[in-house]
Amino acid sequence: MPTKTNALSVPSASAPFEAVEIDRRDLRDDDVRIDIAFAGICHSDIHTVRDEWGAAHYPIVTGHEIAGTVSAVGDGVTKFSVGDRVGVGCLVDSCAECENCKNGQEQFCSKGSVGTYNAKNYDGEWAAGGYSQQIVVTERMVLRIPEGLELDEAAPLLCAGITTYSPLKRWGSGPGRKVAVVGVGGLGHMGVKLAAAMGAEVSTLSRSAAKADDAKALGSSNHIATSDKAAMREARGSFDLILNTVSADLDMEAYLRLLRPNGALVNVGLPPSNLSVRPGSLIGGNKVISGSNIGGIGETQEMLDFCAEHGIGATVERLDASDTTTIDAAYDEVVAGTVRYRYVIDTSTITPG
Amino acid sequence: MPTKTNALSVPSASAPFEAVEIDRRDLRDDDVRIDIAFAGICHSDIHTVRDEWGAAHYPIVTGHEIAGTVSAVGDGVTKFSVGDRVGVGCLVDSCAECENCKNGQEQFCSKGSVGTYNAKNYDGEWAAGGYSQQIVVTERMVLRIPEGLELDEAAPLLCAGITTYSPLKRWGSGPGRKVAVVGVGGLGHMGVKLAAAMGAEVSTLSRSAAKADDAKALGSSNHIATSDKAAMREARGSFDLILNTVSADLDMEAYLRLLRPNGALVNVGLPPSNLSVRPGSLIGGNKVISGSNIGGIGETQEMLDFCAEHGIGATVERLDASDTTTIDAAYDEVVAGTVRYRYVIDTSTITPG
Repeated sequence: MPTKTNALSVPSASAPFEAVEIDRRDLRDDDVRIDIAFAGICHSDIHTVRDEWGAAHYPIVTGHEIAGTVSAVGDGVTKFSVGDRVGVGCLVDSCAECENCKNGQEQFCSKGSVGTYNAKNYDGEWAAGGYSQQIVVTERMVLRIPEGLELDEAAPLLCAGITTYSPLKRWGSGPGRKVAVVGVGGLGHMGVKLAAAMGAEVSTLSRSAAKADDAKALGSSNHIATSDKAAMREARGSFDLILNTVSADLDMEAYLRLLRPNGALVNVGLPPSNLSVRPGSLIGGNKVISGSNIGGIGETQEMLDFCAEHGIGATVERLDASDTTTIDAAYDEVVAGTVRYRYVIDTSTITPG
Repeated sequence: MPTKTNALSVPSASAPFEAVEIDRRDLRDDDVRIDIAFAGICHSDIHTVRDEWGAAHYPIVTGHEIAGTVSAVGDGVTKFSVGDRVGVGCLVDSCAECENCKNGQEQFCSKGSVGTYNAKNYDGEWAAGGYSQQIVVTERMVLRIPEGLELDEAAPLLCAGITTYSPLKRWGSGPGRKVAVVGVGGLGHMGVKLAAAMGAEVSTLSRSAAKADDAKALGSSNHIATSDKAAMREARGSFDLILNTVSADLDMEAYLRLLRPNGALVNVGLPPSNLSVRPGSLIGGNKVISGSNIGGIGETQEMLDFCAEHGIGATVERLDASDTTTIDAAYDEVVAGTVRYRYVIDTSTITPG
């Protein structure tokens, strides 16, 4: 017998949110039931419900930045107990047996990992995400939120945090390294905090100087407006790593020029057009263009532990969902880039009419 | 007083080679005079003298794959003695003081490293390359050719060897790693030998199966004709590293698909068009596109020592330059891809008419 829970659901690409009741499956042996406290609003949620990435399967309950408390566990659960503070990110299942899963990169599961929403579970049921008061997830995909992290500030770490942490780790953010973060938004603000906590000298780049003060407060020692040609020239050859969090089309050449030899430009956004690069821009400096897709479960736990150790959470604005148009309006503000820096829905306020 | 030496020179983009006498500078304190035995023919030589890369300054004496014997040393030279077997690659000077030089990447010298030909020395004199019987080079840029490497087989290591060795090292070619080499030519044949000697499982890719047997003899365990769609599909997701040695335009997407998660596609050729990549092709697998430009002096010595230790030389065909049209014809064969796998000029045969 499934359990009923309140959720925010979108019935079609052009429709607003509705507060509804949805079913959550009965606990299997390895399942954890989570009472969700907060769910972050990620730009991916918006792309999905507006069907901008195609393949939307309505109705959709979005949300893959989930923080809450364990309220029940299946008979075979060993890692979690009722009352534990936990999180769920972009994945709710993977095969656990392929090489990528065994290597801790469940996001690249050969069988196909199961996304937290708009994705089919292996049993054929469609997954519903975190804009909800409860969720049931196999314990292997559940993260522990360490003491010292507030649940509202922790929720966005499950996507925005790991999406920026993983490439910063892989490509070397640390003492003696100069890291630039392009875009100071939901992802970018986490990139700045994390890179600074890792010990790197962090710069930020965005179109204008409007976010310069904010960026410095987050941990950037130098903000560059990309519209300032002199500043862009001055910055040439200065970064070891550029983390591009912008999902609009950017001129890759302009950023490759800012890299030192052996430097890497890593994209975590999905712009609409192809990246175009002169071969000589890579060869002349052994430079790298790469991409990075969230992180595995083990690395996500490592990120959460790192954040707790360094006192890092997302900078959030809480949303009351009792009037669902608040969430619709929040989506527009995320698209407009006016949120500072992540909305989290207080899921206790979801009230079916 | 400069010294006269015989050389092969090209007076203009459309002219054939001429055997001429050129001047080599008197020894400075830190200079080494080298009696050149062999000079390899690199495709870059051809691009340069045919002015396909622009900026050609005629007359040009090409050649940056140089092997010979020390015949004189300046008063301050400490590393070399008369009779030493030595080589010179693509660089004959760098500032030695910038960060990149100090990091052993003289090819990225901030002052601008000095190429072995078609480049101006810091004193303003134009450099003349290795298709010559002598060259004078500051000892810092001279490499030691270990015992056990024949000079003719060693010459191409100074460009084709280091160009493939450096990215194989950086991106991890070794036991348990699956490496693909695209293009089985001058660079590619060295890539296969080196990757196999490093302990990787090596595959080769070229348009057809024509070089399959050759590739296997070089150390490839699997040759894939890129025109064979079924074979390309079969190879999806199988390589940790793809070293692309082809300088024609290739579809990057087709090669990115062959990479495992976290895999790297490294280009060492300079195709005419921009590389075009879907952002999702990098993000969906944390994949990498990079480029690599020769290697520093220290790394070039490391490569030569590695080759000696593993008994690796280039596979060469010697050329007699007493009739200079032999060299013109060899250029055409390099362009046509019919050489197996590197021409080296026996410089003792250069005879001004």
